[in-house]
Amino acid sequence: MKILGLDSSGLVAGVAVVEDGILLAEYNVNYKKTHSQTLLPMLDEVRKMLELDMDTIDAVAVASGPGSFTGLRIGAATAKGLGLALDKPIVEVPTLEGLAYNLCGTKGRVCPLMDARRNQVYTAVYEFVEGNTSDKLPILRVAEPQAAMDIEELLAKLNVLDEKALECQERRPVIFLGDGVSVYHEIIREKMTIPYLFAPANANRQRAGSIAALGEVYFRAGRTVSAAEHRPEYLRQSQAERELAQKERA
Amino acid sequence: MKILGLDSSGLVAGVAVVEDGILLAEYNVNYKKTHSQTLLPMLDEVRKMLELDMDTIDAVAVASGPGSFTGLRIGAATAKGLGLALDKPIVEVPTLEGLAYNLCGTKGRVCPLMDARRNQVYTAVYEFVEGNTSDKLPILRVAEPQAAMDIEELLAKLNVLDEKALECQERRPVIFLGDGVSVYHEIIREKMTIPYLFAPANANRQRAGSIAALGEVYFRAGRTVSAAEHRPEYLRQSQAERELAQKERA
Repeated sequence: MKILGLDSSGLVAGVAVVEDGILLAEYNVNYKKTHSQTLLPMLDEVRKMLELDMDTIDAVAVASGPGSFTGLRIGAATAKGLGLALDKPIVEVPTLEGLAYNLCGTKGRVCPLMDARRNQVYTAVYEFVEGNTSDKLPILRVAEPQAAMDIEELLAKLNVLDEKALECQERRPVIFLGDGVSVYHEIIREKMTIPYLFAPANANRQRAGSIAALGEVYFRAGRTVSAAEHRPEYLRQSQAERELAQKERA
Repeated sequence: MKILGLDSSGLVAGVAVVEDGILLAEYNVNYKKTHSQTLLPMLDEVRKMLELDMDTIDAVAVASGPGSFTGLRIGAATAKGLGLALDKPIVEVPTLEGLAYNLCGTKGRVCPLMDARRNQVYTAVYEFVEGNTSDKLPILRVAEPQAAMDIEELLAKLNVLDEKALECQERRPVIFLGDGVSVYHEIIREKMTIPYLFAPANANRQRAGSIAALGEVYFRAGRTVSAAEHRPEYLRQSQAERELAQKERA
């Protein structure tokens, strides 16, 4: 089974190919170029390097949001185009689940933070539980579903979430990752009353390899949509939609 | 601070650039092409994508062994060439520490397995402890130093290692990763008497991103050598050396 993974939900543009639980290639770039200029040339580069016949791919996994509106649209357009042309299904991997999967197996609660501007973050809370006996992979469990949230509201929630864990004598730090960490690290240091950590450089931004790896898990579980059905999950209204709604109310 | 990471210790050829705790680019390929054909073109591709002035790099981090003898020599030659030409130091990142850093923050004992043929693995055991208060990164701790070892001897050792943890009521599975998992997974399933997991696809092979990320941590700690001083750590004699020694004994 071969899964192509794409992520253009944030500043990172990424392409990866996973085959039967092994990463064949991964290419991520976190640089100012726009994804419309980079994503397809990166895919072409990986395709050449792997001598990859695109018809051998079983599905296209894509970071399906939240994220930058333009970035999500570029990712969705690319995934839909490939899915339609190759007649392959799409696996929608929520961006925050993909981010959390960077830290697969971690002992703490994983809390991705994507800067959503206007003092908000796109966030969620995940935990890893021990895998089933067949493949022995850690399993991602959603503790708090993804949402757009005020950073202070989130931190207050995390501080309380840990109370139950403390009763069980467990020490499970919260581990933060994502581009929101750079933006809000001061407020995190100030407000967190329970143990926390930051993810290291190899795990703190979007990775197409995580989208492809988790995409393979979801594909095996039958979680696919058609290229025609796929649409990104923005979690919030776009600026144009907000302004229209405001105008209509006025 | 900018660190170039290189890994050609196994089947993966990889190039990555980390700047101040953020991965700017990572490109890994796990395919049959030889590293002598792929590593420098991949570096050139990343350099172009980042519009990277090589003089702005502070150090070259390289997976310094163990691994494939030819692969390690290609990595060392590339790192030394760049280090000499650019007048930059080398950060030697032991291959197994780089692999373990793929799972930075995991709750279990991390046990990388690199197939060393002749029923042996290159292996080590690592744990992550909570970071210091300044950077809040999980810290890699060596529980068992890297060595070439019989796979059954290793598994027996791991089963005993956990006894102390069980006394403390802690449940800390061993998490295996590396190309040795594909080779020895049957024997692992048969012999392990304590909980264990396998790493997912996004973390179970060498990553240049982990070499660069851990390389930055080691660079900050002053762990560098000059390009002239650097040499790979093979852990075992090469086949030619073994045969020579055998001949001399005969």
